[in-house]
Amino acid sequence: MDLKSLIRDIPDFPKPGILFRDITTLLRNPEGLRYTIDTLTQKCKEVGLAADYVVGMESRGFIFGPPLAYHLNAGFIPVRKPGKLPAAVHTVEYELEYGFDQLEVHQDAIHPGSRVLIVDDLIATGGTAGATAKLLQQIGCELVGFAFIIELRDLGGRQQLPDVPVVTLIEY
Amino acid sequence: MDLKSLIRDIPDFPKPGILFRDITTLLRNPEGLRYTIDTLTQKCKEVGLAADYVVGMESRGFIFGPPLAYHLNAGFIPVRKPGKLPAAVHTVEYELEYGFDQLEVHQDAIHPGSRVLIVDDLIATGGTAGATAKLLQQIGCELVGFAFIIELRDLGGRQQLPDVPVVTLIEY
Repeated sequence: MDLKSLIRDIPDFPKPGILFRDITTLLRNPEGLRYTIDTLTQKCKEVGLAADYVVGMESRGFIFGPPLAYHLNAGFIPVRKPGKLPAAVHTVEYELEYGFDQLEVHQDAIHPGSRVLIVDDLIATGGTAGATAKLLQQIGCELVGFAFIIELRDLGGRQQLPDVPVVTLIEY
Repeated sequence: MDLKSLIRDIPDFPKPGILFRDITTLLRNPEGLRYTIDTLTQKCKEVGLAADYVVGMESRGFIFGPPLAYHLNAGFIPVRKPGKLPAAVHTVEYELEYGFDQLEVHQDAIHPGSRVLIVDDLIATGGTAGATAKLLQQIGCELVGFAFIIELRDLGGRQQLPDVPVVTLIEY
């Protein structure tokens, strides 16, 4: 299936000069959604990504994390923006273009030695995925890999990540 | 499976006097996640909820919407907070305890006559689910039903919704 044909390009979003790759047109297509989840699962299995937990970042990582966890027989763990998780959290700070942001994970969600797979819809500069990896590795997790639907290769995000397998479905 | 035993109660979150039902402990359990998705799917099928699209609200509706859409052979459509969707949107305003908030859906995501099923993790007062229903019905969609993992019955949210089937897995 030609997944790229289901992605919509939106110029100048969220700001002038940015070409936004919109996955909502893929998600609303039943065959596209099914093929995306099945192929992401299959590719993760092909490279031997056995994980106890699939970790997804708020908000679009929540879309692909749970179905991937379902098909890999793993649990799903959300990484959220500050103040959203109700119990005690570990926090990581990371740099944005202007300023800093934080991500949180429940302290009792993951234990040292847990095998974790990080999933998101898209990797651009790798800031969010890299920060999540740092957060999990600080806890002592075994990071087994990353899975993204879309990779924006020119932005070099992959080079910012730890040296583990990276699965992607669509490259620009 | 006793799903309730996988839900964690957090007193006084997000503010004093509120008992928060935390689903992250369910999500991280592989058998719990699988059982939740399978049972939600089965219950939707039992009441004949045939949908073209499953609609989920940011952020926790993103967790169960895509796997439910996958198993019902439907597409997934995200309803988001203002400014997050990149293309032209329809907007609905709804009342919070103090003030108002808005939800948005892409104008070209759904067409009049589309059969839609609204999913979220929890129904409390029914404010968000009711606003989403209003948004979709204004476009002319056929609302076929709602699916929630948790229903807080004392808050009477179900009575705020249009008269269509409501599927739930856990009641408090």
